[in-house]
Amino acid sequence: MRKKAVIITTGDEILEGLTLNTNQQYISMKLNEIGVEVIRAVSVPDDLSAISRAVKEGMEDSDFVIISGGLGPTEDDLTREAVAKALGRKLSINGEMLEEIRNRFRRRNIELSDNTRKQAMLIEGAKFLKNDVGSAPGQMIEYEGKVLFILPGPPSELKPMFENFVVPVIRSKIKSDMNVKIYRFSGIPEAVLEEAIHDIIYNNEGIKASTTLDGFIGPTIRLTYSRNLEEEIVKIEKEIVSRVGEYLYSIGDKRLDEVVIEELLKLNTTIATAESCTGGLLSAKIVDYPGVSKIFKGGVVCYSNESKINLLDVDEEVLKKYGAVSSQTVEKMAENVSRKFSADIGIGVSGIAGPTGGTEEKPVGLVYIGIHFENATRVFEKRFSGDRNSIRWRAVYSAFDELRKILLSRKKG
Amino acid sequence: MRKKAVIITTGDEILEGLTLNTNQQYISMKLNEIGVEVIRAVSVPDDLSAISRAVKEGMEDSDFVIISGGLGPTEDDLTREAVAKALGRKLSINGEMLEEIRNRFRRRNIELSDNTRKQAMLIEGAKFLKNDVGSAPGQMIEYEGKVLFILPGPPSELKPMFENFVVPVIRSKIKSDMNVKIYRFSGIPEAVLEEAIHDIIYNNEGIKASTTLDGFIGPTIRLTYSRNLEEEIVKIEKEIVSRVGEYLYSIGDKRLDEVVIEELLKLNTTIATAESCTGGLLSAKIVDYPGVSKIFKGGVVCYSNESKINLLDVDEEVLKKYGAVSSQTVEKMAENVSRKFSADIGIGVSGIAGPTGGTEEKPVGLVYIGIHFENATRVFEKRFSGDRNSIRWRAVYSAFDELRKILLSRKKG
Repeated sequence: MRKKAVIITTGDEILEGLTLNTNQQYISMKLNEIGVEVIRAVSVPDDLSAISRAVKEGMEDSDFVIISGGLGPTEDDLTREAVAKALGRKLSINGEMLEEIRNRFRRRNIELSDNTRKQAMLIEGAKFLKNDVGSAPGQMIEYEGKVLFILPGPPSELKPMFENFVVPVIRSKIKSDMNVKIYRFSGIPEAVLEEAIHDIIYNNEGIKASTTLDGFIGPTIRLTYSRNLEEEIVKIEKEIVSRVGEYLYSIGDKRLDEVVIEELLKLNTTIATAESCTGGLLSAKIVDYPGVSKIFKGGVVCYSNESKINLLDVDEEVLKKYGAVSSQTVEKMAENVSRKFSADIGIGVSGIAGPTGGTEEKPVGLVYIGIHFENATRVFEKRFSGDRNSIRWRAVYSAFDELRKILLSRKKG
Repeated sequence: MRKKAVIITTGDEILEGLTLNTNQQYISMKLNEIGVEVIRAVSVPDDLSAISRAVKEGMEDSDFVIISGGLGPTEDDLTREAVAKALGRKLSINGEMLEEIRNRFRRRNIELSDNTRKQAMLIEGAKFLKNDVGSAPGQMIEYEGKVLFILPGPPSELKPMFENFVVPVIRSKIKSDMNVKIYRFSGIPEAVLEEAIHDIIYNNEGIKASTTLDGFIGPTIRLTYSRNLEEEIVKIEKEIVSRVGEYLYSIGDKRLDEVVIEELLKLNTTIATAESCTGGLLSAKIVDYPGVSKIFKGGVVCYSNESKINLLDVDEEVLKKYGAVSSQTVEKMAENVSRKFSADIGIGVSGIAGPTGGTEEKPVGLVYIGIHFENATRVFEKRFSGDRNSIRWRAVYSAFDELRKILLSRKKG
């Protein structure tokens, strides 16, 4: 029998449609991965009795209740009170929590307000969960054999706390033999991938397959199975690799950009970027990775023609003859940026992200990606669909993917 | 008294975290726009008793229940049955609906399967709602003075049906005069803001105030009120502006970056960026804005000392003496990048985003922001908390906010 969970997300902003409930999706996905069945997800406003009722019902129906939001210092942050009320427990200031919050404020040179003290209120019998990102600590309460977790609403705070506290506790409480394997693809449409491996991933007794689209990168296939089917999974995996291996950039949690950067770190190969339409998204994504300074030399955001000429020595004639969005221009951008920064690899990106600026010959969505590496410059012409944001992100991940393939072919060759 | 609604979204894919629940957000936003208060949003799996229970509870607590999903032809499409069960009503094939579905299939040359007949099942006393996009019709049921709407799950089908059927019916049932005003702040902690204006925004009859944190920018206050209180709102707004006006960057929907970029466009003032720890996030955020090429000249991502020296002419002596993360270095970065790109404004950002690299003197979270404008360079020292990602984004929005204040003071001066 799978253990059951109820997810409660609180906040007027959810019920007013101002915030998309990504926390619910994240928690659902994570709970499913460790074999817990989510039987209900409910969103309630910042209202004491509504939250309290949701908590009561959740505790009645399930083994685990995860509640997020309403831990801030303001009047409408009522989660602590509501949970205490639902469980019939007291709420009081916890010295350790108060000290923790006080220190955080001291570091930022802000005085502790009376309101903020509220964040140090601990429910009777609860354990407090440290928040490394924000000021609101979480709480964990065991109650009649069930466990309730209170987590802050901001995703950047909720996610690490879910990983650090919720997952280990739940794993220790259940003896799940469920496992998940994740296959991440790039450069292949979801429908084409499905068709290519449909017969091997579906209809296996005890193995559940699902496909999702991972941001602007590509499709992801998730196989959920009990551990005794490990051999079966090895067979399926071999078949996946043999049929669509060239698009498979990672087995597991690693994202495309991580895979590429880790390879560069391993090879000790340096890189520099020259970006037009992506405007710094590519370099910013590279800098996401801590410790990347060993291989990332820097970049130029050459949004204007002027800057392409002055900072990257792109020939004015080339720009005039072929335009800023052309194979010839990105070729020069890639070559020259690698030289300017003395980097082994230079990447140039130029395109038309829209919504305006497209022509019949060069429509919105046309993007050129140039990669200079080992005395050769390859240029890739791409046509992306979607709005300005989608086109720019697709260009970024496409650049990572082309670089991945170049590094891979070099390895093989 | 505002009318109340409950939203029920059905489907295993939501509870397994495979689908982000955008329908709930859409319905919430639409209902709020017409003055209906959403008191609960619940997601349940494809399970007869779970759906039925959610419907029963929804009808008890609210005036309108909107339920989406589970209208397809397959085994796990149970919404019709569950609603009939919850209301104690019969379910039977409706000739008109069957004909409608039959025609749709004929047009696509697909034979009508037995399963598909299921989609023609109408709940006793219900009105069927035409679906122009997909094969599943919706239903509307009036029950003890309340109204329940059943809509299909795919957003492309749900949205037009919501506009065409749900909005007019609800509008005719209520006489809404609700309005919303949004106040966006930056550079002030939520708790401090609350304390400063607590007495004026809360406890006003007929005015509801709520505070949320808007990403890495700052707190947002939302006042919901009936239109006859417009004068009262003007008074509150005046008081907000007088007390915390310097932190208030926008009244309405505009985000901090938009406010700043629109001001630059209006002034026809050009800008260039020099980024170290933010790695291109600032320039990428500027390029988010379509048509920004008029004022954005470009940027340099000078992640290495080498690039600070070679591309931005930062004096090697300055770097050696004060370090890459110092007031002196960002001052030069800001000045030199404005000169390099011939931009009116130059912004330099350098800091320690972590997780490693901090020292006692220069801890993780220390960020310097330099703004060069009209022959003066101002440098701001910031100490941010949070993880690498949070620190970098806080630095970006802080740069926008300092620039906003400089432009504002210039206007006043």
